[in-house]
This record gives sequence, structure tokens and C-alpha cells, in this order.
Amino acid sequence: MNNNDRLNDWKNLRRQQKSLRTSEYLLPLLKSGDKTALSAAITLTESSLAQDKLESKKLLQAILPHTGRSKRIGITGVPGVGKSSFIEVFGKHLIDAGYKLAVLAIDPSSNVTGGSILGDKTRMNWLSQQSNVFIRPQAASDQLGGVAKSTKECMLLCEAAGYDFVIIETVGVGQSETSVHDMVDFFLLLMLSGAGDELQGMKRGIMEMADAIVITKADGNNIQQAKRARTQYANALHLFPAKKSDWIPKALTCSSLENHGLHEVLEMIESYFLQITTNGWIEILRKNQEKKVFEKHINELFQNFIVSNDNLKELKKMLSEQVSLGELSGYQAAEFFFESIRKI
Amino acid sequence: MNNNDRLNDWKNLRRQQKSLRTSEYLLPLLKSGDKTALSAAITLTESSLAQDKLESKKLLQAILPHTGRSKRIGITGVPGVGKSSFIEVFGKHLIDAGYKLAVLAIDPSSNVTGGSILGDKTRMNWLSQQSNVFIRPQAASDQLGGVAKSTKECMLLCEAAGYDFVIIETVGVGQSETSVHDMVDFFLLLMLSGAGDELQGMKRGIMEMADAIVITKADGNNIQQAKRARTQYANALHLFPAKKSDWIPKALTCSSLENHGLHEVLEMIESYFLQITTNGWIEILRKNQEKKVFEKHINELFQNFIVSNDNLKELKKMLSEQVSLGELSGYQAAEFFFESIRKI
Repeated sequence: MNNNDRLNDWKNLRRQQKSLRTSEYLLPLLKSGDKTALSAAITLTESSLAQDKLESKKLLQAILPHTGRSKRIGITGVPGVGKSSFIEVFGKHLIDAGYKLAVLAIDPSSNVTGGSILGDKTRMNWLSQQSNVFIRPQAASDQLGGVAKSTKECMLLCEAAGYDFVIIETVGVGQSETSVHDMVDFFLLLMLSGAGDELQGMKRGIMEMADAIVITKADGNNIQQAKRARTQYANALHLFPAKKSDWIPKALTCSSLENHGLHEVLEMIESYFLQITTNGWIEILRKNQEKKVFEKHINELFQNFIVSNDNLKELKKMLSEQVSLGELSGYQAAEFFFESIRKI
Repeated sequence: MNNNDRLNDWKNLRRQQKSLRTSEYLLPLLKSGDKTALSAAITLTESSLAQDKLESKKLLQAILPHTGRSKRIGITGVPGVGKSSFIEVFGKHLIDAGYKLAVLAIDPSSNVTGGSILGDKTRMNWLSQQSNVFIRPQAASDQLGGVAKSTKECMLLCEAAGYDFVIIETVGVGQSETSVHDMVDFFLLLMLSGAGDELQGMKRGIMEMADAIVITKADGNNIQQAKRARTQYANALHLFPAKKSDWIPKALTCSSLENHGLHEVLEMIESYFLQITTNGWIEILRKNQEKKVFEKHINELFQNFIVSNDNLKELKKMLSEQVSLGELSGYQAAEFFFESIRKI
């Protein structure tokens, strides 16, 4: 091959690569369930290039009618509770039952260490080799609402690609689990036994969001303690206000190591979906979720607007100090700040 | 007296009344603990007249250095739990211990019925006749953050007037108790026994905000049930994440009817303040509160800006419908909406 041919080949390849990043190219492949297209579509969604953003918007608009049919599960818990092991074994139950599964793992540490994404892949060793499974880590972004937006969009892409279950995994210590709670149908909290001590690192309010608490590592010497914890959490869940879905939150135990209790978790989740499909809550839930996204994202855009303007950022810092020193009340500072925004 | 004299008298009175509504006139009286001046200052704060707003701002700026010395207590619970009876009897313990007490009762129904304010006055019959007690109902406003803003400002005025305890009473079913929680040092949740059923009407997340749960009406046939409820709530409180104050939330029982257990509530609250004064949390708490007010009020002003603009209100409603119908994603709608705001 001479230089000229080589150059033409290279040009063709570039042209081809570029056309791969278009909504027109990806849409039919995505709808047929093509994993490579799904990956490419997610990459497009996460890209910060203007052209990619445009194509991504077009793609998301086009897939909207093909979304909404997955069961959306949020799974959270402190580091060390065994989220990946749980998903690995629970996922096997889903695959055995004939379902297609997508796992989106939000990794708040990935910005810093860059390490645990690889860790996740290794820990879900069996799952990651299955043809009916799609696993994708989600780097947590600094941008407010960043995690939520791209995770939600990835979830919709997975739905359009025909996945029956989408599991969103997050760590229950940061900002992300409220956002995740707001985008899933079922919110599962994994807990270690030795009740009480483990919640110390958890975000407040997380127990009340849970549709179920599953005590992990109920094996070996741990079984009795896990059962006691289960009873304690079952009692505590009972004290919370009733859920609008009429679902009564459950507490269960399981062992990913011995593959115990996972089947019961699946049965519980299926009975939940049966209940909310029968009583019509699923439609209300999905509508409420989108409306909440609408409301929340307006505020996120407002916050981003402030953060991305150096003058405002500076002014806010200055006012916050004045408030700390007792020179200004919080209300006075807020009024001055809002007037300053309006003048921009 | 002839007509001319009568007219001059009337003019003098008007002039006097007007000068009463100034920061210069009210400030020294307020600091001396004058109740009439405190009432007038609160009325000024709640007024919507431009001149009053200006004077009120001046007054609040002037009293800021004289605030912060009260113990700020939030009390909430569903209607019927016996909040007013509790405060009536608990207040007597405070007065007997030599404290001055201000009670601000937020009444979410007052806009509609106009009735329960009078009810409150009657129910706190003994308290309302004491010279060391100041009781003031707070009408809930439609304005976002309205309750919070005027309540906080009233609280500061009470502090400047030398009240040792400021109790803010609210009903645990609406929007106000999160705002109240964010402005008090100690948040007390009153509950009826017959655990579980009563929280049904409560706002989610309220149990986790509580520094203490007190089971009311622990008298007559109710005693055993109240004690059981106490144990259940004590166990449940134990499961929540630790408080930043290092305070371990308590569960107690009391009877306002038989004046049982109220002394223990006071002891608990005093030990709480001893703890947070010793470990320095009180300073951090107060600073955090004001910073939170600053952050939150910026958002409230932003929301008010949207609500007070008819075009934006209309657009938001239209977009919300599109989101409901699945024509637009929540993110898309929010982006379009925020761009529209920026064009104003």
C-alpha cells in the first residue's frame, strides 16, 4: 500500500468514526440491544464536546418513547457492606430468571483515586462476562446535579436497549444517594449487622428512603447478630410514616458468600413491582420523578450559574464570612446576593 | 375642647404613633425588655408597608449584637398530641426555675380558619398571664420562606428583649418544621403512644431531626402503652446516624394533665445545653444555622422571583405538563426554563 492509499484509508476511518458518534447511526443499533452502541451512546452523553452534546440531546429525545419499561433499582450502603458482591450474586438470580441486567456504578472516589472502577469490574467477575449483562461505572462529577443527570440519561439509554433491570449502585455517604433515590422505583439499603454502629457514617435520612433494608454477610458466626439486626430494623421501619406507594418496607438478611437469602430479595422486589403495577403507583411515581427532576434541575442550573461566575463566587464567599462573624444576618446577606445576581 | 384643639390632638397622636414605629424609638425599649415595644417590633417586622420594612431592617441590624443568648427550642407534633398543654405546663417549670420565656406559635391554619390563634391563647391560659412570658402567634405565609424569615426575626427580637428560652411551636405535617429545625438549638418531637400509627400524618424525616421524642398523655390507662412506645422510639433513635453535636437523642414520657415527667424534660434540655456549651458545638451550630439561612434564602428568593412573574409561572406550568406527558425529559424542560429566565 502506498502513502496515498494509506492516507485515504485513514481518512475513511476517521469519517467512519465520526459518523459513529451520531444519533442517526446509534439509534437503530441501540434499539436492537447492541452493547457497543450502548457504550458509544453513553460516552456521547458524558462527552463535553459541543458536537457530541448536540448529538446526545438528539439521541435522548429520540429514545424517550422507548424508555420506562425497566425496573429501576437503587442499591446503597457504606463502603465494606458488600455492594458489589451482593450485585454479583443477586445479578445471577436475575439472569437465571431470564432477565437482562444493566448495572451503573456511581463511584464518588473515581475523581480522586481512579482506582475503584477497576475494582468493581474485578469484583463483579461473573456478571461482567455475561452477554445479558451490561456494567458501566459512572464517575462522580464536581458539577452539581452532574452525577444525577448523566446517570439518569445512561439509565434511559439502557432502557432503550431493552434491559429489564437497571441497578444503580451508590455509596451511602455522599450527595448522590438522594439523587439516585429520586430516579429509581425501588431503593435498597444494604447494612452490616451490629446494628447502630454502621449507620454512623451514613447520610441522615437514608433509612427513611429505603424500600427494604438487607443485612449482608449473614453467614458463619454472624448469623445470629444479623437476625437480631433484622428484627431491630424491621421494628424501626415500622415507626416511619407510611409510603405513598402503600408498600411496607421490609428487612431481610442475606449472604452473598453462601448465596443465601438472595432469592427472597428477588421475590420481594417482584412482589413490590406487582403491587405498584396493580395499584397504579408506578405511573404516578414515574411522573413525579420526572417532575422532581424538572424542579430540582432548575435549581441545579441556578447553582451552577453562580458557581461558574467568578464575581458571584467571590461575593458569596465574602458574604458567608460576614454572616459567620455576625455582621449580617443570613437573610440580609441572601437579599444582597440575589440583588447582585439580578444586576448581571 | 374646640374643633381646632381636637384636630391638633389628633395630629399629635398620629405623629406619636408614627414615631413609635421607628427603630430609634423601639431599640432602647426593646433592650430594656419592654413587652409592648417587643410586640410593636414584631408587628413592624410582619408589616408589608415600605416604610415599616425599612425601619424593621434598621432595627434588626441594630439588635444583631444583642442576640444569640437564648436557648432556642423547637417543638413539633401532629394536631392533637397536646403541644399547647405541654408548653403551658413545661413553661411553668421554666418560670419556676427563674427563666423568662417567649413562645412563638406558627399556625399553618390561621390563613384559612383564623381560629386557632385564639385557641392557643386560651389553651396557654396560665402562661399568658405571667409577666415573664411573651406569647405570639405567627401566621403562616404563602410566600416561600415567609414563615421562616419572620419567625427567625421574631426570635431575634425576643432574644434582644432578654428572654432566656424561646420556644417555637409548629405542627409536624407541613413545610414549616424543617425551617424551624434549622433555626433552633434543640428540636423536640411530641408523640402519642400507640406507636407507629401516629407518624402516618407526619412529614418524612422528622424523627431523624429530633433531639428528643416525648410521648405525651402518659396518664390513666395510657401509662403502659406510653412506656412501651418510649422503649420502641428509644431503640429506633439508636439506629440513626450520630448527631454532629455528639448528643444522643432521648425518648421520654410525660403527662401535662398530671404534671409528670416535665421536670425530666427540662433536666434533659439543660444537660443538652451544658454538653453543647462544653464541647463548643453551640458556636458551630449557630454559625452553621446562619450560613444555612443564607444559602436557603438565596434559593427562596429565586423561587419567589419565578412565582411572582406571570410569564415564568405560565411557562413552568406548561413545561411541567410536557414532562408529565413524556414529551420532554425533566432535564430538557429545566434547561429550556432556565434559559428563559436568563432572557428576562
